[in-house]
Amino acid sequence: MPNLFEALPEDRSREDFADLLSRPGVRIERIVSYGQATPVDAPYDQPHDEWVLLLKGRAGLWIEGEGETVLGSGDHVLIPANRRHRVTWTDAHGPTVWLAVHFDASVKTRSP
Amino acid sequence: MPNLFEALPEDRSREDFADLLSRPGVRIERIVSYGQATPVDAPYDQPHDEWVLLLKGRAGLWIEGEGETVLGSGDHVLIPANRRHRVTWTDAHGPTVWLAVHFDASVKTRSP
Repeated sequence: MPNLFEALPEDRSREDFADLLSRPGVRIERIVSYGQATPVDAPYDQPHDEWVLLLKGRAGLWIEGEGETVLGSGDHVLIPANRRHRVTWTDAHGPTVWLAVHFDASVKTRSP
Repeated sequence: MPNLFEALPEDRSREDFADLLSRPGVRIERIVSYGQATPVDAPYDQPHDEWVLLLKGRAGLWIEGEGETVLGSGDHVLIPANRRHRVTWTDAHGPTVWLAVHFDASVKTRSP
């Protein structure tokens, strides 16, 4: 039985992105952060909606037009397509674990 | 900021199912159980894949051909389409909170 809080990456110097499942038009991803943030000059900006759920840890999330909010365990938010956004900070003292669901029409793969 | 662990239903006599988000072909649902189980003679059997993540509490899950397993926080499992399955028990002492992602091609709505 796979567990989202196990098999965390040993390398804490970078964020870890791992696909859990993908189906046509949707991809579920686990993200593990160790204090990282999105560079101010390189926000995410993607052409598909993304739903994010914070599972463990804490983080700041800035979304264009909505400002910055703090996310704790259980908080979830929809990031609309073509809306710039940045993770402004994540917990420096332990892993921050996210679930991201990308509603991406370009996802054609079927796995596992 | 909505939180999956807040606004839990006051009525503990039945399971609570709440759609969080739906897009063409996919629906994300929160399920809250208070000790309920699926009747032995009425397993779930649906024509689409379902991915389940247990967020809080504990539960037993039986899947046809795979047997019964115990799920704790962070455990996740793919339930293939047309595979009978049952929740055999859930924690009787507190809420069990699940996230279910239904890969259902019949979902046409777009919300919120």
